[in-house]
Amino acid sequence: MNLTTPERPARRRGRPPKNSARPYSEVRQALVQSGLAMLTEKGYSSVGIDEILRSVDVPKGSFYHYFKSKEEFGQELIGAYGQYFARKLDRFLLDDAFAPLQRIRNFVQDASEGMTRHQFRRGCLIGNLGQEMSLLPESFRGQLKAVFEDWQQRTADCLRAAQACGELSTAQDCDQLAEWFWIGWEGAVLRAKLEASPAPLQRFASGFFQLLQPGAD
Amino acid sequence: MNLTTPERPARRRGRPPKNSARPYSEVRQALVQSGLAMLTEKGYSSVGIDEILRSVDVPKGSFYHYFKSKEEFGQELIGAYGQYFARKLDRFLLDDAFAPLQRIRNFVQDASEGMTRHQFRRGCLIGNLGQEMSLLPESFRGQLKAVFEDWQQRTADCLRAAQACGELSTAQDCDQLAEWFWIGWEGAVLRAKLEASPAPLQRFASGFFQLLQPGAD
Repeated sequence: MNLTTPERPARRRGRPPKNSARPYSEVRQALVQSGLAMLTEKGYSSVGIDEILRSVDVPKGSFYHYFKSKEEFGQELIGAYGQYFARKLDRFLLDDAFAPLQRIRNFVQDASEGMTRHQFRRGCLIGNLGQEMSLLPESFRGQLKAVFEDWQQRTADCLRAAQACGELSTAQDCDQLAEWFWIGWEGAVLRAKLEASPAPLQRFASGFFQLLQPGAD
Repeated sequence: MNLTTPERPARRRGRPPKNSARPYSEVRQALVQSGLAMLTEKGYSSVGIDEILRSVDVPKGSFYHYFKSKEEFGQELIGAYGQYFARKLDRFLLDDAFAPLQRIRNFVQDASEGMTRHQFRRGCLIGNLGQEMSLLPESFRGQLKAVFEDWQQRTADCLRAAQACGELSTAQDCDQLAEWFWIGWEGAVLRAKLEASPAPLQRFASGFFQLLQPGAD
């Protein structure tokens, strides 16, 4: 998405669309959803705002009715994706029907199925933008880092639960392991896209589980 | 680079530039070098051919004098980067002034210094294109995979040398370890760009070295 070149706002900032039958919040939400789908597949630099507006049938001149700037739109997408994914992580990592390490395995399995379902075209929005960071507004950097830290925190909490129930050695540093998982996981997502196969996700996860030492009995 | 939309070749295919004082092979090589620098920083989708032509002072109409198509140009860039990086890997991984595992550490150290020198704007061309694969000509997929396999092979050979001299347990599968290194390494490069810091490279490598079991005495 060419948000990197500052662009002049429409002359009549905030001009409402002619067909304003749809409520403001509904259209805004539709723009965010469409932006999320497109950026998760294509990254930021190659998606145009026009394409997103067209996909939800909003006239070009109305963009600034919904968002102060393209940068603000990007920030909203990062926030929405971060939260969507945090909820997904919680669904797996807090699921006490399974032992803690199995919850991480379940997340990996779900990610494999999700990428397969989207024919390996969609990856991770946060990873895509991290890759493109040198082209993005500088304000995105801290926001993207914070999303990774949030996901790592949730993963570290699950590893601490594994320590509490004796699945994982208490000598291991859960924050370090979680950070390490997320650093490598983004590489695995990238490779899964390239190979059009879930195998890289599974292979990376299997190395991660080899790093974990069992707790003392 | 918008090589994804098929573009009509210039009407006079192969029109030589007006100022043809520079030899053909020199200009072609300069285009490849400029393409490598730009794509390593920005990926494929956001770089235009015009930008590359301008950077080496070649008129727009002359592109097809040097390359049959934009797809062929992209293929040449992947090949050139793959070879450049294979030579770099050999410089470290075959350097018998150091024990085999130290050679891998030296490579990680050099990569950290290289990314720092380029202010974390430049990553890995192969990783950038892997990330963008769903937007690229399908012919790139096999070529990008082959580059990873080549780098993995060189890394696995170094790990086998570590086994031969007793640094690494012969029970470990060197091909699997090398693949695992390269899957995660691309994630570490991505995170180093995001954090504008070499720490993610070092942290990922330290996890990798924890996976290695020492050889029996």
